[in-house]
Amino acid sequence: METLRVGLCGLGTVGQGVVSLLQKNTNLISERCGCDIRIVRIANRSEKPDLDLGGAAFSRQIEDIIEDSEVDVIVEAIGGSDTAVSLIRSALRANKHVITANKALIAEYGNELIPRAQKAGLFLGYEAAVAGGIPVLKALREGLAGNRITRISGIINGTSNFILSAMSHSGDDFSTALQEAQTLGYAEADPGFDIDGVDAAHKLCILAALAFGTPLHFESVYMEGISSISVEDIQYAKAMGYRIKHLGICMQDATGISLRVHPSLVPASQMLASVEGVMNAVQIESDAVGASMYCGPGAGALPTASSVVADLCDLARGNTQGSRHDKNFPIVQIQGIRSAYYLRIPAVDKPGVLAEIAQLLSSHGISIEGVSQREANSHDDDKGAWVPIVILTDRVLEATMDKALANIASSSHVVGNIVRIRVEPASAFGNSSA
Amino acid sequence: METLRVGLCGLGTVGQGVVSLLQKNTNLISERCGCDIRIVRIANRSEKPDLDLGGAAFSRQIEDIIEDSEVDVIVEAIGGSDTAVSLIRSALRANKHVITANKALIAEYGNELIPRAQKAGLFLGYEAAVAGGIPVLKALREGLAGNRITRISGIINGTSNFILSAMSHSGDDFSTALQEAQTLGYAEADPGFDIDGVDAAHKLCILAALAFGTPLHFESVYMEGISSISVEDIQYAKAMGYRIKHLGICMQDATGISLRVHPSLVPASQMLASVEGVMNAVQIESDAVGASMYCGPGAGALPTASSVVADLCDLARGNTQGSRHDKNFPIVQIQGIRSAYYLRIPAVDKPGVLAEIAQLLSSHGISIEGVSQREANSHDDDKGAWVPIVILTDRVLEATMDKALANIASSSHVVGNIVRIRVEPASAFGNSSA
Repeated sequence: METLRVGLCGLGTVGQGVVSLLQKNTNLISERCGCDIRIVRIANRSEKPDLDLGGAAFSRQIEDIIEDSEVDVIVEAIGGSDTAVSLIRSALRANKHVITANKALIAEYGNELIPRAQKAGLFLGYEAAVAGGIPVLKALREGLAGNRITRISGIINGTSNFILSAMSHSGDDFSTALQEAQTLGYAEADPGFDIDGVDAAHKLCILAALAFGTPLHFESVYMEGISSISVEDIQYAKAMGYRIKHLGICMQDATGISLRVHPSLVPASQMLASVEGVMNAVQIESDAVGASMYCGPGAGALPTASSVVADLCDLARGNTQGSRHDKNFPIVQIQGIRSAYYLRIPAVDKPGVLAEIAQLLSSHGISIEGVSQREANSHDDDKGAWVPIVILTDRVLEATMDKALANIASSSHVVGNIVRIRVEPASAFGNSSA
Repeated sequence: METLRVGLCGLGTVGQGVVSLLQKNTNLISERCGCDIRIVRIANRSEKPDLDLGGAAFSRQIEDIIEDSEVDVIVEAIGGSDTAVSLIRSALRANKHVITANKALIAEYGNELIPRAQKAGLFLGYEAAVAGGIPVLKALREGLAGNRITRISGIINGTSNFILSAMSHSGDDFSTALQEAQTLGYAEADPGFDIDGVDAAHKLCILAALAFGTPLHFESVYMEGISSISVEDIQYAKAMGYRIKHLGICMQDATGISLRVHPSLVPASQMLASVEGVMNAVQIESDAVGASMYCGPGAGALPTASSVVADLCDLARGNTQGSRHDKNFPIVQIQGIRSAYYLRIPAVDKPGVLAEIAQLLSSHGISIEGVSQREANSHDDDKGAWVPIVILTDRVLEATMDKALANIASSSHVVGNIVRIRVEPASAFGNSSA
């Protein structure tokens, strides 16, 4: 191939990033690929923006790109799901390769689109869909191809990580930190996808599908967001040597695979705990390598464009073999996972209450790793005098913890909702003397 | 291709790792590659070991593999340089692809072997040569193909990192920590290659050649090892908020490229500072992504085998395009780099000496970031009463620092050798509130 001819759909952040990166590093890229990569046509529903399109034809009709026989590959950068999925279906029907940064689309329609592209002998690239500029899908698919992957845990939503970092540094509460993220452009006006864990779940199911060779199981991802995390919990966690991070975690063991996104206490000495702001980090555990970790910016015009261009380069070089997603393993529901837990239990402030709670946990076989009962004595009209009892437990089956907490909640000494946050185990990436 | 037929030369740690990984994950690997990968012949100079060779023919003559028309690709796992380079030359002449984990060989003979393989249309894979199980060459070559790389800094010698970590944790001196590393098998009986920086220099020149598209410039790598690092310096650095790590650093700017391996002070809040023991980590700065980082085990049978198998999978999938190394940039010598510095100056313990040293630095335009003059007052027969004056400077040209230190050393108040360690700037990977 002498020139790979690109049709770009969408000129938002990602689209503009791709235009600008391909212009900036044209020579470098063609030297590295042994092939020129040229945008020959761009479609965007709004007016042509004030941007150097490098001679590419501009159209406001997406169909023009599909029908253009000069276009080898379509870069889908329009976002959303409905229009994007029709576009990709049409592109594949028109025998064009497709590259997308659209995680929602791959998570929701990947089970249709990936095999469809493969059957047609076409390339469907989506490196940019997970962890922005970090080439982590390539690492899973190629760099670790000899490894059985057992577990992935990662910070894969930059907005949530920014908000939790800000709350941790400034002591601001969730809604103030969210507003700051919105002001800085790190959170959307409607932040639901990010803070409720949907975006992380999209990415996690893509990681899991590549790691385990399964279909995309978006519907099976257990999902908790960060909106219930309080500054109080962040501070208790800190005092006990932890940071609170929103993690996506998938695992495979003899019982099946589990997929979940939720806030987690991470030991402060772990590298993952030092990943701040909008940075992403993905930790992969596999049988040959052991632990490996990949960090970088999870979003932004140029980091995302970098991954789109990496896919273009793979296509130009002929590195286009698709991944198989034909394995089926039982899905382990959240009640079936094992975890250590952080518990914050608002309880009547009188002797014997901690002992009662410890006894209730113990009766379910749950050991206590640590207790923190600070002076934060409160008095509410409805609760009387109460204290938060903060407990770290050993690892236990989630279903067992559910039962124990139902028991504890029904105690007359417990005066409010119990906070429960899972605790991430330490990995090989930590400074034991931090 | 239905089966990729492998001839394995050498059955040491790496060779045995490759045999065992290909056996363990046979099905997984062939599903991922769409092709079986099978070792058909193994050559080893010593007797056949007590190991399941999975039906591969065994020979004590390496030539048997070269001449075997059933072998598509030769995995060189014999190590060393002389025999290995002859083997690879013969393999390429016999029209066989080659995969090696041998960094010394690529660093020293890559400029001959890489173009030779390319001209012959053969694949020469060496992912395992740098950072063991971390697919960092693939990240540079493919994942970041759209990026101009500006700087790489990494912990790329596990032995040195283990020794420095041990010194930092236990307070042991260098030779005790080295002995511990030798006992645990992390350092060779003759540890020179590791502790003098030669191994790191081999790896660094490979990283730089891929990052900048240049030939391998092993001869131009500035090299300092860790044998002169004292516990005292580790402790002073710690007190000032730093860890001492042995880093490989290469950069490209308008003046050219620089390559160096040496101990560095790394801010303790940086993720790089938390990379402990035999772990490796490579931080890459590039124009589109910004900072990205890749961590994992830098050595060991299975991590190394993982990278060898990744190369085999690339070959099986046809992802074999070689990288170009035809760019030439001026080499910036160590005197031409800019850095902040840690200085430890043994000086006479009397008023005005710190002021004199500060004045001498200032007269060369060097600003002081911080000073630590601890109570560590000493008395030697030859020096009299003296104190170590510890100074952190701002960034300055190394040549300027050389001149300033020559000046300072000639002061009658300076009573011994000055220690000078470069300080690594903070990157995006750090916890500002660690």
